[in-house]
Amino acid sequence: MDIAARRKADPDHWRLAAAIRALSMDAVEAANSGHPGMPMGMADVATVLFSKHMKFDASAPNWFDRDRFVLSAGHGSMLIYSLLHLTGYEQMSLEQIKNFRQWGAITAGHPEYGHAEGVETTTGPLGQGIATAVGFAIAEEAMRAQYGADLCSHKTWVIAGDGCLMEGISQEAIGLAGMQKLKNLIVLWDNNDITIDGRVSLSDATDQLKRFEASGWRVLSCDGHDAADIDRALTDAASGADDRPVFVSCKTIIGYGSPKKQDTSGAHGSPLGAEEIAATRAAYGWDHGSFVIPADILDEWRAIGARGRAEREAWNTRVDAAANRDEFARRISGAVSDKLAPTIAALKEQALTAKPKVATRKASEMVLEVVNPELPETIGGSADLTGSNNTKTKDLGVFSAENRTGRYINYGIREHGMAAAMNGIWLHGGFRPYGGTFMCFTDYARGAMRLSALMGLPVVYVMTHDSIGLGEDGPTHQPVEHLAMLRATPNTMTFRPCDVIETAEAWEIALSSETTPSVLALSRQNLPTLREEAGENLTAKGAYVLREASDKAKVVLMATGSEVEIAVAARDMLEAQGVPTRVVSVPSMELFREQSEAYRKEVLPKGPVRIAIEAAVRQPWDWLLLGERGKSKKAGFIGMTGFGASAPAPTLYREFGITAEATVAEARRLLD
Amino acid sequence: MDIAARRKADPDHWRLAAAIRALSMDAVEAANSGHPGMPMGMADVATVLFSKHMKFDASAPNWFDRDRFVLSAGHGSMLIYSLLHLTGYEQMSLEQIKNFRQWGAITAGHPEYGHAEGVETTTGPLGQGIATAVGFAIAEEAMRAQYGADLCSHKTWVIAGDGCLMEGISQEAIGLAGMQKLKNLIVLWDNNDITIDGRVSLSDATDQLKRFEASGWRVLSCDGHDAADIDRALTDAASGADDRPVFVSCKTIIGYGSPKKQDTSGAHGSPLGAEEIAATRAAYGWDHGSFVIPADILDEWRAIGARGRAEREAWNTRVDAAANRDEFARRISGAVSDKLAPTIAALKEQALTAKPKVATRKASEMVLEVVNPELPETIGGSADLTGSNNTKTKDLGVFSAENRTGRYINYGIREHGMAAAMNGIWLHGGFRPYGGTFMCFTDYARGAMRLSALMGLPVVYVMTHDSIGLGEDGPTHQPVEHLAMLRATPNTMTFRPCDVIETAEAWEIALSSETTPSVLALSRQNLPTLREEAGENLTAKGAYVLREASDKAKVVLMATGSEVEIAVAARDMLEAQGVPTRVVSVPSMELFREQSEAYRKEVLPKGPVRIAIEAAVRQPWDWLLLGERGKSKKAGFIGMTGFGASAPAPTLYREFGITAEATVAEARRLLD
Repeated sequence: MDIAARRKADPDHWRLAAAIRALSMDAVEAANSGHPGMPMGMADVATVLFSKHMKFDASAPNWFDRDRFVLSAGHGSMLIYSLLHLTGYEQMSLEQIKNFRQWGAITAGHPEYGHAEGVETTTGPLGQGIATAVGFAIAEEAMRAQYGADLCSHKTWVIAGDGCLMEGISQEAIGLAGMQKLKNLIVLWDNNDITIDGRVSLSDATDQLKRFEASGWRVLSCDGHDAADIDRALTDAASGADDRPVFVSCKTIIGYGSPKKQDTSGAHGSPLGAEEIAATRAAYGWDHGSFVIPADILDEWRAIGARGRAEREAWNTRVDAAANRDEFARRISGAVSDKLAPTIAALKEQALTAKPKVATRKASEMVLEVVNPELPETIGGSADLTGSNNTKTKDLGVFSAENRTGRYINYGIREHGMAAAMNGIWLHGGFRPYGGTFMCFTDYARGAMRLSALMGLPVVYVMTHDSIGLGEDGPTHQPVEHLAMLRATPNTMTFRPCDVIETAEAWEIALSSETTPSVLALSRQNLPTLREEAGENLTAKGAYVLREASDKAKVVLMATGSEVEIAVAARDMLEAQGVPTRVVSVPSMELFREQSEAYRKEVLPKGPVRIAIEAAVRQPWDWLLLGERGKSKKAGFIGMTGFGASAPAPTLYREFGITAEATVAEARRLLD
Repeated sequence: MDIAARRKADPDHWRLAAAIRALSMDAVEAANSGHPGMPMGMADVATVLFSKHMKFDASAPNWFDRDRFVLSAGHGSMLIYSLLHLTGYEQMSLEQIKNFRQWGAITAGHPEYGHAEGVETTTGPLGQGIATAVGFAIAEEAMRAQYGADLCSHKTWVIAGDGCLMEGISQEAIGLAGMQKLKNLIVLWDNNDITIDGRVSLSDATDQLKRFEASGWRVLSCDGHDAADIDRALTDAASGADDRPVFVSCKTIIGYGSPKKQDTSGAHGSPLGAEEIAATRAAYGWDHGSFVIPADILDEWRAIGARGRAEREAWNTRVDAAANRDEFARRISGAVSDKLAPTIAALKEQALTAKPKVATRKASEMVLEVVNPELPETIGGSADLTGSNNTKTKDLGVFSAENRTGRYINYGIREHGMAAAMNGIWLHGGFRPYGGTFMCFTDYARGAMRLSALMGLPVVYVMTHDSIGLGEDGPTHQPVEHLAMLRATPNTMTFRPCDVIETAEAWEIALSSETTPSVLALSRQNLPTLREEAGENLTAKGAYVLREASDKAKVVLMATGSEVEIAVAARDMLEAQGVPTRVVSVPSMELFREQSEAYRKEVLPKGPVRIAIEAAVRQPWDWLLLGERGKSKKAGFIGMTGFGASAPAPTLYREFGITAEATVAEARRLLD
């Protein structure tokens, strides 16, 4: 059916969809940058979705029980900006649309969480949206199980393109969703057969329906330009016919209506140009000026934006009547529990007395064992390394299709999918997710970990086996550059605690964070309790004096995690040789950087030799060793300069020269 | 069928397989660390594969036309070490087996490329093996097309576990392999239904046969403990019945034969213990001591190792007779073409005259346009950003099922799969692969990029859109921490050239590298030709004086890539103000670090104020700003402290304060 026939067959639908198409073309043209083809192709599907299926109220973008809409194909950002403007989200003024992709506008090139209400998550790196949506759907199931369908019952809708489906993270996401039977998750595939390089067949021949079915999804198809057929498919998808998540293939034409560019990659990523826009307007029968939406069409869209108002008000009434409304309000606000601080304080006191010698991964488990029962909002998990990451505590129960009140998720061997799901769980609200894998496999999760930081989501990464100290598994499993990578990433707190007390403090900070993710780098090997006081949270200062020198310090040793023990031993040796030596523990460089200059100078005075000890590369240490302005001093580093090796941990420390003896020798060399 | 029945039914097979099982148990026990369950489970499949199907000659591990064997489930390393020892690979002595996982042994915890001949690629991080194998299979097809089946015709066999198949990278790999119809690629799935956390059903419900079929694979199944059934399946798999790659589900029992631990995750990752080993030996009917292989069984295995000798000799004869044998020998040796240097030199001379103002991504294309016709070993590609990465040159042709002589691969939206495939292409031999994506999506490819570095493979990553200079696509697409990440990674050359000449020099180094991967960070925006001499490859020094100060320098400005232009502009302003200022271009920190101390001091003398300019985080610059030993000097940094934003590039540079004016102001402040 050609466009003229489509227009004629369903004029009411057509003009609503045409408004999206026109705004998208115009905004990309004005910005002279952007992706018009996807919004033009998916306008029909989006119109049917928003007008007939999505539960939302444009006047209350953050209504907790709204359906979530995730534009996984984030380059098509003008689709969501158009929808938000048309349905009446207050922030999304026409002015913002006109300033698409400009400095200070909320209409960023790709949808950015926190810029515009109604954007549920940042997308753009392909596949992140669909994987984050799995987290939304998990959180919805879990909250419904805990608070009942009266307070939580909604769907998560995703629009994904071929790019999202080719990315590996999509398989992790759909495997997890299929196994977990997340029936309220519905993915709409923009099946337009075009990628940036040309037709999909240049690079892919996957039978996507069969693939999703193999992963435990129900699959449907529709003509993505036929409103009635779209409505049929979405009605079926939303019906909950069985307990599987639903994948809907929407056959569309990219850049639909552009006489010269539709159905080509030319419509994907650049403005159509004035002439082609005029021709496309004619094809649409849209004779309104640039950025002009006629009042009657806007009124219709605004009515769509108000469709959910009564439902929201009824929900408000139910919440007000709920016995547990205060706790529910706290949970969905993300506020920190007041039970956290005393729980951590008690554990620290115990540790100060008992002085356990345990791996910090075990210390982390000790923290979780006391925290999880007090904080019902935690939801843990691991990428199939539960016994190694020590992430599962006795009280949690396993989250599954049969047990939605379980608070431990077996993410499977899916680090990237886990990280993205954690982002979605936090974004949904109601939970504080944490998840574990080996530190080295931050490599696999990087894409989603960066989005945790960019969006400002206080999720917690429990990264165990954090150095050559893991021993025999060898260099593929031994991080050496990962601390540098994490410390280079903006808005990421990287903790490397040295004992139980620092581990407890790091957890306290991580679980109190509101806008920053935390990474806990934890040892496999046992470490002594080194702290001699448990009052203040010293980890919150980033670095502090753990052992004072017997006299004015001639040497300051800085270290983190498992190397603090080495620093303390080296100090004892140096002190025995008459060299006053201070040990500074540095559990978080980021937090130390935030301290006052006076405090930083107090911890790291100008005169003494400085040596840092960390079983990793030196890069992040230079500023601490040398001072940001390059003060005159002598500095050394005991650590790694290349990859690790496969052998027992004590052998590796000895062979790579990360020992108290090597530290003492370096100190003496620098003192001479 | 129980074990006793199996033994009785096929005693000849059984004892061969039992030798693998016994060695694996014993070595893990001796190391007190490792993964016995997988070798015990897959011993039957491996025995049939090596004894009846694999083309190899243990006396010539690097015979080019051997079948490749990739143990994607790398934790089962004792499987391959046992096979190599038993079949008679000279390096793999019994002593090495006894030293499993010890310092200096070639029997690392996970198989490490370069440690033991016969280990075709490093595995351990799950999914890497299967994805690297796709590269092997691509290279095999391409070499066969170029040199004929007489010189190149072999298969790539992979053993993969559930972990490999759950990792997202596996989907990228199988999608690419299916689309490319790599019929000589055969994946054997160790379908044992167990992961570290327990039964697979805890975290996955994927119908793998259906999933692979959806991705364009032929699928087969067998009983992984029945030698005849395995042989039937492998014969079918190797028959080339159609043009699809083949996936074989081998139903196995992890830790097969261990009375207490088989079919449980308890057999996965720790020694069985002396008592259980004794019980398992009894079940096997293996009454030989620890590490003892009876002579008759060893003889049988050694005969298997010699099976391919005649075939190899026939191949040698064919090679000797081939008209193009010298070029073939050069190609498979990986030696650098002597055409490279003059081609680069000519381009540099032209650029010096023409002084083009182009983006360095375009400069890279200009290099490839002249290099690719001269170097038939290059094989390029992009993760669906061909027009943006400028990776495709006119002469290449597209590699596809229909055109195996094409030298450009449409990798699809699969950054991780692309990186792993490039590793495999290099490891196979015959080609120098390069591939492009956006710099920010090094995040997606990290897992395989780390293996390029760890294995020492000179593949080339063409990473365009390398800073906020990409503009409107916004922070999800704007790298700020990625240069730090790459520079922190051992054995990785990170180049950020400032113009056409530096780009050509970086390519020259990258294409001459033998054991180090290169990352080219390239701009989207146009940059002037700044170099004023084209003789020596100055990029090879890592950093050099690009503009000398008019008098003894009071300020030294260091910069890379697009910010060198800013440094030059700031120098001109400072010079106009009477401040002698030197500009140092730093295309590669790694190479500068390798220079003599004298040269480094010459480029960066002690006295002047130092300012670095780079649109990224400061972390990697501290050592250059402050000196490794912390000499007394004043230093400043003009760059990023957080994520970018969505706006036109000039706006972003202005708003983030990365300008010549800001540089001048910082210099004046530090001079005061």
